[in-house]
Amino acid sequence: MINGERTIARPLRWGMVGGGRTGQVGYKHRTGALRDGTYQLVAGAFDLDADRGRDFGTKLGVAEDRCYATYQELIAAETGRADGVDVVSVATPNFTHFEITKALLEAGIHVICEKPLFFTVKESEEIKALAEEKGLIVGVTYGFTGHPLVHQMAAMVKKGMLGDIRIVDMAYTHGFNAGDDVGAPEAVQWRTDPKRSGPTFVLGDIGTHLYYLSEIVLGDIKVEKLLCDRTAFIPSRAPLEDHATVLMHYDNGARGRLWVSSVDAGNMGSQRYRFVGSKASVAWSDSHPDQLIYQVQGEPERIMHHGMPYLEDESLAADRMGALHTEGLGDSWSNIYLWIAQAIDAKMRGDDAFLASHHYPDIHAGLEGVRWLENCVKSADQDAAWVDFE
Amino acid sequence: MINGERTIARPLRWGMVGGGRTGQVGYKHRTGALRDGTYQLVAGAFDLDADRGRDFGTKLGVAEDRCYATYQELIAAETGRADGVDVVSVATPNFTHFEITKALLEAGIHVICEKPLFFTVKESEEIKALAEEKGLIVGVTYGFTGHPLVHQMAAMVKKGMLGDIRIVDMAYTHGFNAGDDVGAPEAVQWRTDPKRSGPTFVLGDIGTHLYYLSEIVLGDIKVEKLLCDRTAFIPSRAPLEDHATVLMHYDNGARGRLWVSSVDAGNMGSQRYRFVGSKASVAWSDSHPDQLIYQVQGEPERIMHHGMPYLEDESLAADRMGALHTEGLGDSWSNIYLWIAQAIDAKMRGDDAFLASHHYPDIHAGLEGVRWLENCVKSADQDAAWVDFE
Amino acid sequence: MINGERTIARPLRWGMVGGGRTGQVGYKHRTGALRDGTYQLVAGAFDLDADRGRDFGTKLGVAEDRCYATYQELIAAETGRADGVDVVSVATPNFTHFEITKALLEAGIHVICEKPLFFTVKESEEIKALAEEKGLIVGVTYGFTGHPLVHQMAAMVKKGMLGDIRIVDMAYTHGFNAGDDVGAPEAVQWRTDPKRSGPTFVLGDIGTHLYYLSEIVLGDIKVEKLLCDRTAFIPSRAPLEDHATVLMHYDNGARGRLWVSSVDAGNMGSQRYRFVGSKASVAWSDSHPDQLIYQVQGEPERIMHHGMPYLEDESLAADRMGALHTEGLGDSWSNIYLWIAQAIDAKMRGDDAFLASHHYPDIHAGLEGVRWLENCVKSADQDAAWVDFE
Amino acid sequence: MINGERTIARPLRWGMVGGGRTGQVGYKHRTGALRDGTYQLVAGAFDLDADRGRDFGTKLGVAEDRCYATYQELIAAETGRADGVDVVSVATPNFTHFEITKALLEAGIHVICEKPLFFTVKESEEIKALAEEKGLIVGVTYGFTGHPLVHQMAAMVKKGMLGDIRIVDMAYTHGFNAGDDVGAPEAVQWRTDPKRSGPTFVLGDIGTHLYYLSEIVLGDIKVEKLLCDRTAFIPSRAPLEDHATVLMHYDNGARGRLWVSSVDAGNMGSQRYRFVGSKASVAWSDSHPDQLIYQVQGEPERIMHHGMPYLEDESLAADRMGALHTEGLGDSWSNIYLWIAQAIDAKMRGDDAFLASHHYPDIHAGLEGVRWLENCVKSADQDAAWVDFE
Ligand SMILES: NC(=O)c1ccc[n+]([C@@H]2O[C@H](COP(=O)([O-])OP(=O)(O)OC[C@H]3O[C@@H](n4cnc5c(N)ncnc54)[C@H](O)[C@@H]3O)[C@@H](O)[C@H]2O)c1
Ligand SMILES: NC(=O)c1ccc[n+]([C@@H]2O[C@H](COP(=O)([O-])OP(=O)(O)OC[C@H]3O[C@@H](n4cnc5c(N)ncnc54)[C@H](O)[C@@H]3O)[C@@H](O)[C@H]2O)c1
Ligand SMILES: NC(=O)c1ccc[n+]([C@@H]2O[C@H](COP(=O)([O-])OP(=O)(O)OC[C@H]3O[C@@H](n4cnc5c(N)ncnc54)[C@H](O)[C@@H]3O)[C@@H](O)[C@H]2O)c1
Ligand SMILES: NC(=O)c1ccc[n+]([C@@H]2O[C@H](COP(=O)([O-])OP(=O)(O)OC[C@H]3O[C@@H](n4cnc5c(N)ncnc54)[C@H](O)[C@@H]3O)[C@@H](O)[C@H]2O)c1
Repeated sequence: MINGERTIARPLRWGMVGGGRTGQVGYKHRTGALRDGTYQLVAGAFDLDADRGRDFGTKLGVAEDRCYATYQELIAAETGRADGVDVVSVATPNFTHFEITKALLEAGIHVICEKPLFFTVKESEEIKALAEEKGLIVGVTYGFTGHPLVHQMAAMVKKGMLGDIRIVDMAYTHGFNAGDDVGAPEAVQWRTDPKRSGPTFVLGDIGTHLYYLSEIVLGDIKVEKLLCDRTAFIPSRAPLEDHATVLMHYDNGARGRLWVSSVDAGNMGSQRYRFVGSKASVAWSDSHPDQLIYQVQGEPERIMHHGMPYLEDESLAADRMGALHTEGLGDSWSNIYLWIAQAIDAKMRGDDAFLASHHYPDIHAGLEGVRWLENCVKSADQDAAWVDFE
Repeated sequence: MINGERTIARPLRWGMVGGGRTGQVGYKHRTGALRDGTYQLVAGAFDLDADRGRDFGTKLGVAEDRCYATYQELIAAETGRADGVDVVSVATPNFTHFEITKALLEAGIHVICEKPLFFTVKESEEIKALAEEKGLIVGVTYGFTGHPLVHQMAAMVKKGMLGDIRIVDMAYTHGFNAGDDVGAPEAVQWRTDPKRSGPTFVLGDIGTHLYYLSEIVLGDIKVEKLLCDRTAFIPSRAPLEDHATVLMHYDNGARGRLWVSSVDAGNMGSQRYRFVGSKASVAWSDSHPDQLIYQVQGEPERIMHHGMPYLEDESLAADRMGALHTEGLGDSWSNIYLWIAQAIDAKMRGDDAFLASHHYPDIHAGLEGVRWLENCVKSADQDAAWVDFE
Repeated sequence: MINGERTIARPLRWGMVGGGRTGQVGYKHRTGALRDGTYQLVAGAFDLDADRGRDFGTKLGVAEDRCYATYQELIAAETGRADGVDVVSVATPNFTHFEITKALLEAGIHVICEKPLFFTVKESEEIKALAEEKGLIVGVTYGFTGHPLVHQMAAMVKKGMLGDIRIVDMAYTHGFNAGDDVGAPEAVQWRTDPKRSGPTFVLGDIGTHLYYLSEIVLGDIKVEKLLCDRTAFIPSRAPLEDHATVLMHYDNGARGRLWVSSVDAGNMGSQRYRFVGSKASVAWSDSHPDQLIYQVQGEPERIMHHGMPYLEDESLAADRMGALHTEGLGDSWSNIYLWIAQAIDAKMRGDDAFLASHHYPDIHAGLEGVRWLENCVKSADQDAAWVDFE
Repeated sequence: MINGERTIARPLRWGMVGGGRTGQVGYKHRTGALRDGTYQLVAGAFDLDADRGRDFGTKLGVAEDRCYATYQELIAAETGRADGVDVVSVATPNFTHFEITKALLEAGIHVICEKPLFFTVKESEEIKALAEEKGLIVGVTYGFTGHPLVHQMAAMVKKGMLGDIRIVDMAYTHGFNAGDDVGAPEAVQWRTDPKRSGPTFVLGDIGTHLYYLSEIVLGDIKVEKLLCDRTAFIPSRAPLEDHATVLMHYDNGARGRLWVSSVDAGNMGSQRYRFVGSKASVAWSDSHPDQLIYQVQGEPERIMHHGMPYLEDESLAADRMGALHTEGLGDSWSNIYLWIAQAIDAKMRGDDAFLASHHYPDIHAGLEGVRWLENCVKSADQDAAWVDFE
């Protein structure tokens, strides 16, 4: 149970690139980070529009002279200060992630970067090597995976409560792009442009969340081959997709099904997961995140509620509100930000033992997401043929 | 609204082959047929075990001398009576459907046969031709499709309330075969034996229900190519499958996803359907059949309830219990049996006009189910490759 | 598990008074009775409009000369026939129940009567005495209580699975009378007229269902005092009520809350029940009758599904469709009609032992409903004061 | 939509009394306050155990010399500092609220106090007068009422979308006290002791939440008379109650039903509300706070989701996460804390115009809760008789 007591040496000095007034995801970063005195927002290059960014930053409580016009300025100025930022979050469109992350790391600043991390595995490996060389952390904001019940599922699978995993069924679909993109906001424009979004639209935008969460739950079980059938119901989005199904074969013989779509008109169900084992299944959805459906074949279905003593320790450790009281997406982000802070803190203290067993969405998680996307695109480009996962 | 008033000339004299005391599906036939004075159960060869069959038949109220040891005896005796059966239902394991149906039709008896209808398209076409030649009806007991809200979905798609259909997502999964088949009842033994079950297990057993219901809702939209990935998590079931995913491309550009499994441990959700159009979606599940979820993008989700005046006429016409009062699977079967009776009645009266516009699960529906299975197996046998639907 | 095998000596010859073409509840009787060859509909005085009644009756398959203009004619003619009716159902407005039931019993005919049974306890006791004297059965169509999971709840309470019962919470509310009654159908007109409806509207119309079901589940626990607060939001309905809350104190110290309303705009939830014990609770609703929520304090919530082997025998014995397959309200009525038939059959056979342990909604159940209504009205008439239950 | 931009002149310097390491509600205050730079936690008397309190406070980032042993010390020291606290939250057992609040106000410090505010209306009026005299704000942490959809309900009622309000049905029940209190934690011990809890247990503990939320939604509609039936299923809790039902008559003719219990074994449903009007109803539960059920009689049920453009401005203004992304209880508290901060800020600026139209749970709301409790107890003490609300 988290109650706000500090678990790190001191609050981290934190900056943001992107996440400005009009940005979609910026507030999720701030509401995740700015709790419990873990981070202090002291600098930012929040916006492509420098004036708006400065105005916004000061309204967030950042000193005017630490509201920068560009990330380059931010790096230059902050590295020159004794009280410069420890860590910077990157909440800009996908195509800028690589160069900004690289520049921050080279300047000795820890990074928290949005997903999909980069465009290619090659870029991701380059950044991984750089971060290792510099002794810096790169966290990735898979913001849904901080929910206590996600870690309940992982613990149950690990303990063998489901038996051997056989089937994984996942979906993240909505209908906010059911119509065409004429007059759509900037956040839609860049997402549907391969130059700015990268090789995918919904696969990277929402599919990576599914894939990472499944990695947490599945542990050692890995994809062996996959098939991706993608399409653009709104033609202007091609070659990017607004709908895709991915079938996966795992190395233990399990089968996976994953569906992503932004043209699933009217669907408000957000993410849904189902992990089926030889004895039992668990199912969880972000739309009702406080409950986990646990089904043992031949027994009454069980609904587990967050914060209840019957849950595994891993789940209770991530709880903030306690039973009966809903945890929201912000609480989940807050855990992700906390876990990344703990990694940065350990890195600063040189505590490798802690880091060896500490779980958070790291550069490896980000890289694996990019690898999965590369494999999906490879399959899709061969008319949705099966490809060996590599 | 159905209230029990007779819509056919006289009650049909009805017999059953199979559906004996230990049979799984037999009571569904009887509870479907024996309402409203539409059918009268007057004869049967209910059981492989003739004595048990006779004892059972008399307990159902059938005269002892019309409880036959075999379907051959039934045909011989009943065709010799002035008050012989008009129609016989076949509720036996799959491998017997073809020969029994054929023999009944040749004897001039209408047939109501279980699904999956036969093993091959060729057999199905042979029976179709035979029925036409003889002027007889062959109905198929896709028993879930009598629910009023199934016909609401079809009417909504037809009226264009969803816009252009883009995505079809269907699943029928349960976990009753999550364990192996040692000591399993007869109904499981034959289902997992290719000689008696035919070329598939769950695809034929439960997938055909999904496929037929989707045909009702989709109207003119047809499968163009498909891919079927099937597996047997219990190895003794191979080459038959206990889990399969089918991806479909439709001729209007829509994409389909279908999942069937009998190893989905603990799942009690029965069948779930989602039809997504460019404007709106509808979703329905047999586990809560009284409600239809209708989602127009950008508007509050709507839940429609059976029996309410805002529904389309097609739906209200099939309602038995009225709003607030649950319709069960038996009510759905009851409609299927009624619609088949109306077809038989029209055939007897030579009313071709009625038949031309009357909808019920007919030989064509049965044949299309078999065709779909053949295509699934063809794909599965090529390591789950895409195949053109033919 | 019910599979249609006859459990009585021979099908009962059955007649109906009321339940004509325009009647609301008539079809529920027929769909409940006309299954499994338990009853055969052979006579009726279906309608106040004799011609319409005759036309309707013949469409139901009743011989024209046994479609009578009045219940008096029916009694006169049927008692004169060797193959006259064994039992008659009364599905007419409340104010006619007493005189029709009385006349039938006096003529030696078993009766199945609608609820609320009569206007007063005195009338009910008179009929009870008459039925006993004549050796006849009076069944009451509390049609919702045939659901298998109702009997699961009763069995669980009896076995002590909930601990000591502390709280009973019940509601049956809908909004079909949210507007006023101008132009409303006959079924609404008589229900809101004290002369024809009796001393209550929604308390008798829907509250008696709640009360009887709770009697089944609670067994020996009885109401000791109660308070009823009723009102008519549509003034023309006064002194009858379209909304009422009843608080009850039981003799074991438990507290009850009951809510009935027909002005609960938009509510489609039908009946909801919650029985809370010192250890656990059960909750069930007629709108999703296939599932029972079973909550042990401190454990995951459990959802039990009808037809599953983990249920108590009492529940499985009442199952018709089997797990995964929805039971509807018609199946429930069908059980009620079956259980009444078994009582009549036992009575005919003089099998008192059977009758002593056989449960069905009998004259006593009907009388208790009327008693409860009398107590409610007594309280309401004293400005919703507490009254001792008597 | 809230995105973290500051709406007040400067962050408020904030202290806490109570809410220490073992306190149940303390973290909810902190997670509510410590966002968006609205409050800075600078001082506290967190715990009866001064050492533990100091240790805890420093772990929360409070300077050691501002972690005080008692609230008296806190007041003495903080009023002596130029940078002393602006506002202090009181998160201690009920019996201490009055004296601590009074002392803080007298020292010129704004107060945020837990509910139930005080033991008596008299005390509440005294504090109200004192706050007015001093020009200080007293906020009350009805923490559930910050949810955007609560304000959607209020806006819909105000606009007349439901028609005339007829029925209010509310419940907040759980089973965490289904067993007795032997060995229970301190938070249960004081709650069941009249000296420390005040005149009620569950009525004050959870019932006040229901009542305040209903006040927000109902606007001008006020309780005219009520009846409260309370009991203690665990006898040691008497005269306090662990279960109560309150019936209310409102001045517009509406009827209310309210249920609170902490012995509702297994119930995890938290709070549920239903407001029924002559045309439509709305229903909302804290357990799935992101959705509002809106039911217009005769139309499909509608489910409204937070953050969607079709909602009223009042609701969208309170949204933090945006559609598809769950808001949790912490987000709700965060809004409450923000609204109180805005009141304090306006008070500091002397902005009476802002205060006149600004809504937040203020001293009046706290007082009305206490008044409601007094009326409930008055009724309960007369054997659950009706009492005029005064
Ligand atoms: N983790 C999640 O759940 C989640 C949710 C939404 C978006 N995202 C990711 O977050 C990123 C941003 O997405 P969004 O929807 O907020 O985009 P957006 O277009 O809404 O906002 C981007 C913001 O970045 C600013 N910006 C752009 N380029 C910049 C630059 N070079 N320097 C400084 N500021 C710059 C813009 O002014 C704007 O404020 C994307 O990578 C997206 O995939 C993640
Ligand atoms: N429409 C549906 O929803 C549904 C549901 C279940 C089963 N089914 C289908 O119904 C058929 C029967 O399935 P089941 O599960 O009831 O099988 P089952 O093995 O449980 O029962 C088969 C019955 O047929 C009898 N039988 C077998 N061979 C016979 C013969 N030659 N002559 C006379 N009687 C014979 C058996 O004695 C038994 O009573 C299958 O085709 C199955 O696919 C359909
Ligand atoms: N058990 C249940 O769930 C349930 C449900 C609905 C109604 N009911 C009860 O059923 C009874 C009928 O209700 P309804 O809603 O069907 O009423 P209704 O007004 O819709 O129908 C009454 C029927 O009885 C006929 N009738 C009236 N008086 C008659 C007479 N003297 N002789 C012959 N026929 C006569 C009418 O012509 C009509 O067909 C009432 O007592 C009601 O409380 C019970
Ligand atoms: N708003 C809500 O949703 C909500 C929820 C829970 C509790 N509450 C209210 O919060 C208050 C506290 O409840 P709780 O459950 O946290 O109680 P608790 O017993 O769990 O915690 C009380 C805390 O206050 C400290 N404390 C007690 N007396 C003190 C004093 N004189 N000075 C300083 N510290 C003192 C204790 O050491 C402890 O840390 C109660 O009034 C309760 O009704 C409100």
